Amino acid sequence: MTTTSQPVTMDKLLSLAKRRGFLFQSSEIYGGLNATWDYGPLGAQLKRNVKDAWWRSILQHRDDVVPFDAAILMHPATWEASGHLGSFTDPLVECRSCHQRFRADHIDSNNCPNCQGELTAPRQFNLMFKTFMGAVEDTASEIYLRPETAQGIYVNFKNVLDTSRRKLPFGIAQVGKAFRNEITPGNSTFRTREFEIMELEFFVKPGDDDDWLQYWTEQRMDWFVSLGVDRANLRLRKHESDELAHYAKEVYDIEYRFPWGWAELEGIANRTDYDLRQHADHSGQDLTYFDDQAQERYYPYVIEPSCGADRAALVFLIDAYQEEKIPPRKPGGKTETRSVLKLHRSLAPVTVAVLPLSRNERLVPTARRVHEILRQRFNTLFDDAQSIGRRYRRQDEIGTPFCVTVDFDTIDDEQVTLRERDTMSQLRIPVNRIVDAIEDKLRHGW
Amino acid sequence: MTTTSQPVTMDKLLSLAKRRGFLFQSSEIYGGLNATWDYGPLGAQLKRNVKDAWWRSILQHRDDVVPFDAAILMHPATWEASGHLGSFTDPLVECRSCHQRFRADHIDSNNCPNCQGELTAPRQFNLMFKTFMGAVEDTASEIYLRPETAQGIYVNFKNVLDTSRRKLPFGIAQVGKAFRNEITPGNSTFRTREFEIMELEFFVKPGDDDDWLQYWTEQRMDWFVSLGVDRANLRLRKHESDELAHYAKEVYDIEYRFPWGWAELEGIANRTDYDLRQHADHSGQDLTYFDDQAQERYYPYVIEPSCGADRAALVFLIDAYQEEKIPPRKPGGKTETRSVLKLHRSLAPVTVAVLPLSRNERLVPTARRVHEILRQRFNTLFDDAQSIGRRYRRQDEIGTPFCVTVDFDTIDDEQVTLRERDTMSQLRIPVNRIVDAIEDKLRHGW
Repeated sequence: MTTTSQPVTMDKLLSLAKRRGFLFQSSEIYGGLNATWDYGPLGAQLKRNVKDAWWRSILQHRDDVVPFDAAILMHPATWEASGHLGSFTDPLVECRSCHQRFRADHIDSNNCPNCQGELTAPRQFNLMFKTFMGAVEDTASEIYLRPETAQGIYVNFKNVLDTSRRKLPFGIAQVGKAFRNEITPGNSTFRTREFEIMELEFFVKPGDDDDWLQYWTEQRMDWFVSLGVDRANLRLRKHESDELAHYAKEVYDIEYRFPWGWAELEGIANRTDYDLRQHADHSGQDLTYFDDQAQERYYPYVIEPSCGADRAALVFLIDAYQEEKIPPRKPGGKTETRSVLKLHRSLAPVTVAVLPLSRNERLVPTARRVHEILRQRFNTLFDDAQSIGRRYRRQDEIGTPFCVTVDFDTIDDEQVTLRERDTMSQLRIPVNRIVDAIEDKLRHGW
Repeated sequence: MTTTSQPVTMDKLLSLAKRRGFLFQSSEIYGGLNATWDYGPLGAQLKRNVKDAWWRSILQHRDDVVPFDAAILMHPATWEASGHLGSFTDPLVECRSCHQRFRADHIDSNNCPNCQGELTAPRQFNLMFKTFMGAVEDTASEIYLRPETAQGIYVNFKNVLDTSRRKLPFGIAQVGKAFRNEITPGNSTFRTREFEIMELEFFVKPGDDDDWLQYWTEQRMDWFVSLGVDRANLRLRKHESDELAHYAKEVYDIEYRFPWGWAELEGIANRTDYDLRQHADHSGQDLTYFDDQAQERYYPYVIEPSCGADRAALVFLIDAYQEEKIPPRKPGGKTETRSVLKLHRSLAPVTVAVLPLSRNERLVPTARRVHEILRQRFNTLFDDAQSIGRRYRRQDEIGTPFCVTVDFDTIDDEQVTLRERDTMSQLRIPVNRIVDAIEDKLRHGW
């Protein structure tokens, strides 16, 4: 069995994603909505698994982070204070001939990349989506869809401090939707206008911030590797001083080698005390922290690992995709190619597929019974359509780590075949030990 | 121990919710954003538990429902087809004197309830939030925040059918945010402009729809009861023909006895084939289902149980709140009142609190060690501030089912005290058996 070194193309991946029900263009029956995506049954479960894995790593496996869930709609004064109303902009140019729009910092020439027409002078375009709350569209009720979840945490810093009585260092974590009216979205779910973000705001004593930035950068890098991403496809890039966001002292990007090149997967930022100070100034509220050991009062610094759930899910898919040449089983037979998603077992949308060898009336009830046993413990799928070979290939293609096959011997000996995705090895296991066998393999790898 | 029959007031509940970190007004430091709420650490975990319980009941414990995750932003043609652009409106009147706005169908008189001023004639006000996608605010890019998640499922019906190869009856389920620009929101998280909704679209053969409506109405009623809501505080109400939504044949509301009276908790609607037909007509796509047993092609009917996650979380809080009179422990002592949230064990934000008897330097390391053991398995909280009595009360007030207390005897005998919230009974249990003891109680109740 040999694995092709050819990296997956986006066309190939998106074709699989659509064919198997991971990802559809939003409102596809109406021609789609630009750069917006819907997750089908497998994609919805994959993305849920990604978010759960993040939650376990950031919250459940630690003792120093509490969860939060702020609303998408916030008081507009928030965006005044945070600087987003003033500076969350991209430079926009428009072609005077074909009227296409581009980010001025993404094109090299003075002419339109589409039709060579003349471009307008760049103007600053604010990326926040605007809407109107209340019954009339006046300025008083103009509000914005949040472009990041972080601000919902900052404005509640004192509320969390007062009610959870935490001491520094501690973090507040949130998973939720954010919106950015990108001028040039693209590459499927890599850059979309609506996205889900997993953010941790980790509050530390000023002076400890450099160490904590290192700590979180390593933690986050290790998280991707622990979930199966090849470390060779990841790298760290430190932001140059001229590309730092207005609130940042130092930022590391975890970059991934996408099919179109290296690009940002996650940013880990030292946001200093910028946001807390701004909100304190604008609201007149005290957002400082009293350090009872040092007997001093100060604004904490914030280290922020911020990861797009959609982008992470896309990376797990890309990195898991492999094509393998399988030598012929008999002399003169054909070499087959199998497409397999080698998704980490905790990310795979289906953990165990139950497959009766055929739709025979004696097999199916037994297979259903085995399925009922497995369904209590794992994400399962029952499939009795087409040949067993095709069904194995289908499960490989959606990344299912285990297939349990029920055949005619099962009726006599109460044993089933457990097939593993990666090795394609097959083992006979008694029905009454199948749950334990799979749990054991899930715990210890295989 | 006697329990007061006095139902909780909203003031009392919201005061607890704020004091303990369940719920804060959104952007509170800026005076708040009307009818928008943020969930603090305990509220975020409670709401997550509510959504997980729904997910388990609708998806994991069943074999006939698949998950979905559609975007909030959809092609505007969706809302044309679904009828929301035309009819998702409330009648709005405004006072000519004080300019307050009201829902015409919520007031009895012709004069302003606020200042007795004259009201305008009612006009139909569309409840969808409008925003603009792309770089200019022209009509072409006018889009809406979805007012329900259901449409994201309908427009993908064929995609799901083709990729998951399901047969009727089957369901597609989704949890996500929706937005309605309510004229008169209120009662904390009962009616908000931004809310999270847990929706199941269950597709059935026409003719089977009445039975499935009954089935799902009972299922959903039982779900609330299984999670601890007093059945006496729930009732079913069938919609009158003049209040049915434009897409509905029959609707049941599960109503709850809120502190302000009976009001809708969840709606279960027979939406017929209205939406699929509308989308087929507007998109020109075939959204029918081919029934290979009956050898006929038709539009499935849809039964939709639709439950607000915020509203459900509020109901679980209200229903769990109790005040108990505790008789004095010694003659001449005081009768105490304890406030306790009798939240179901699978909903409580913290399952086990670990409490060293005091901050003594010998106790705390032992308590930390016990905490580490418990933290691997449960949602835990470590609390060593103030007297043990006050800490028990605090855990009662946030609904923690178990407290594990580490005292000086623990150092000698490796046993801890397990206190149960509801009975306040206390048991000595060896540290190496504490996880099993709690898991056993969680499984079998107590």
